[in-house]
Amino acid sequence: MPTLQEIRSASLQALQRVGVPPRHAETQLSLLLEAELSGVPSHGLLRLPRIVERIANGVTDPLACGTGHWQAGAFWQVDGAQGLGPVVAVEALDTICGKAAETGVAIAAVRNCDHLGMLAWYARHVAGQGKILIALTISEALVHPWGGRQALLGTNPIAIGIPGSDAPFVFDMATSRVSMGKIHDHAGRGLPIPLDWALDAQGNPTADPNAAKSGAIAPFGGAKGYGLGLAFELLVASLAGSAIGRDVKGTLDSTEPCNKGDIFIVIEPHADAGMMVTRYLDAIRQSPAADPATPVRVPGDRALKARATGLDGNIPLAARVWENIQQLAQHGPAPCRTIQEKIHEA
Amino acid sequence: MPTLQEIRSASLQALQRVGVPPRHAETQLSLLLEAELSGVPSHGLLRLPRIVERIANGVTDPLACGTGHWQAGAFWQVDGAQGLGPVVAVEALDTICGKAAETGVAIAAVRNCDHLGMLAWYARHVAGQGKILIALTISEALVHPWGGRQALLGTNPIAIGIPGSDAPFVFDMATSRVSMGKIHDHAGRGLPIPLDWALDAQGNPTADPNAAKSGAIAPFGGAKGYGLGLAFELLVASLAGSAIGRDVKGTLDSTEPCNKGDIFIVIEPHADAGMMVTRYLDAIRQSPAADPATPVRVPGDRALKARATGLDGNIPLAARVWENIQQLAQHGPAPCRTIQEKIHEA
Repeated sequence: MPTLQEIRSASLQALQRVGVPPRHAETQLSLLLEAELSGVPSHGLLRLPRIVERIANGVTDPLACGTGHWQAGAFWQVDGAQGLGPVVAVEALDTICGKAAETGVAIAAVRNCDHLGMLAWYARHVAGQGKILIALTISEALVHPWGGRQALLGTNPIAIGIPGSDAPFVFDMATSRVSMGKIHDHAGRGLPIPLDWALDAQGNPTADPNAAKSGAIAPFGGAKGYGLGLAFELLVASLAGSAIGRDVKGTLDSTEPCNKGDIFIVIEPHADAGMMVTRYLDAIRQSPAADPATPVRVPGDRALKARATGLDGNIPLAARVWENIQQLAQHGPAPCRTIQEKIHEA
Repeated sequence: MPTLQEIRSASLQALQRVGVPPRHAETQLSLLLEAELSGVPSHGLLRLPRIVERIANGVTDPLACGTGHWQAGAFWQVDGAQGLGPVVAVEALDTICGKAAETGVAIAAVRNCDHLGMLAWYARHVAGQGKILIALTISEALVHPWGGRQALLGTNPIAIGIPGSDAPFVFDMATSRVSMGKIHDHAGRGLPIPLDWALDAQGNPTADPNAAKSGAIAPFGGAKGYGLGLAFELLVASLAGSAIGRDVKGTLDSTEPCNKGDIFIVIEPHADAGMMVTRYLDAIRQSPAADPATPVRVPGDRALKARATGLDGNIPLAARVWENIQQLAQHGPAPCRTIQEKIHEA
């Protein structure tokens, strides 16, 4: 098994080989590694080949940080200029964190940057500076409306980070029943999926993960979860002026410029809130559990525990993922073809 | 059946009889009536006796509008001074709507005002002015953590209002599986409740609505809904400096000053977002339905339809609710006793 240092080094090399400047590569990698260390491999280094491929295909600009302007006193509007998601987002967050120190609240609306990855990373980053973050992003249409048959909504996650006197509270969830990654994972392992996870291409419930891939995932939590995911889709597109619904492209493929939107709201908490947060969360953890063998958990506890282990340098990276990274570090992606070249060849 | 005019008139009289100034009575009543007209009677005139009783008991101040100050440039911090929920909230919303016109985003954090009632009303109010609203409030601990047995979280609703070129999009949901009102309703009608709705006082699943009253309601959407409700509880208390968890009092009873918090975030949408919102929602409504007999709905559609009917003057008010209102209008509440007097008597 490779050490954390070997993984870092090969990953940075893979990114720099396609022209990602060292500082941008560090930011992108820090996000992917935190996902691995937090026990969320679906948002970890598994994603690196896609990022590299997008750059090689010319749909992602590894140099871009996005260009922003103050649309109003505390509203930072950003054109992501096809930059890497975390690179553009961290730049925007730093800007509005500075502003929120004066105004108490500030918002950044970003369009046209690549996939943000695990939103919890941003929430931890901001909460670590003593500020609250609400982060929203949208994706390609993968989720059907409650009572509908077609994929019309993104998986539309939300993350909320709140400073505590001890560790920050970090919550991050998609508004879909499951992730498309989980459906791919079941397909790969030849396992059926529960009937309430997804519909097939005709809009009928299916237990076949391969049929679900071309269908639609259910919203989480029934009609409420559908309403929430829809509200987030509208909120993001209304503020960022991004694409919406089935017009969203470029967060899953390697050939389309990404046109989705992201929203970050940074707020200054009440002066003595941190102690209250930590005390309340501890009371919840110590409350009687439904199953005495499984103590009541607070969101983020599992990730914290996984990180405590992972920081020893043990990332249980799948062999295939590590092979891909080494391949990309040593040889780069398969011959870099732009979309135009691909079309020309076809 | 009383006319809308008769209901309005008796309700205003009931409020004014306990010292609510006409303008405050109009605001409070407008909220309760919109709930009735939107087909949400659980948040309608059923609530009027409790409001009157709280004023008579001296725990609600019918004159108070709350006192606010700019904690920072766009952050309006309000002490609700035990005022009526909608009176204090509308005052705060008007202040931050004005500010958001300059800054793009503004927030109000309110503590110590009474129950806000149906959050959708505020979302419609703000979206009707062309602005986005995100509203959060907390309640007494009624909901158990996922995997827990005790009521430690409020029902913590969220409302989101987004302007459309046609009608605004208005979404409003609690993060509990069902409302406590629905459990009381089942108890009143002698009906069992599904086992996944609530726990009894010992923390075990129960089909008995009476046992559920002294237990805890489940969060909606499993672990995700729990995490979301918890995030909202922390967000509100961290920003408003309000009580949290089991320390929250005064939204359900008639004897405790209310110490919960509320958050309102107002944001200016992108200039041409309204058209996009309306077009996208129409595409969802027109998409294929799982059951061809039940078209796909967008949150708020049912309320819009109910209001279109109700505006003719037909509110299907329960006979008991109307009797109570008439009683309060003509004779006021049962002899007004302060908590001190009650304690003295006991």
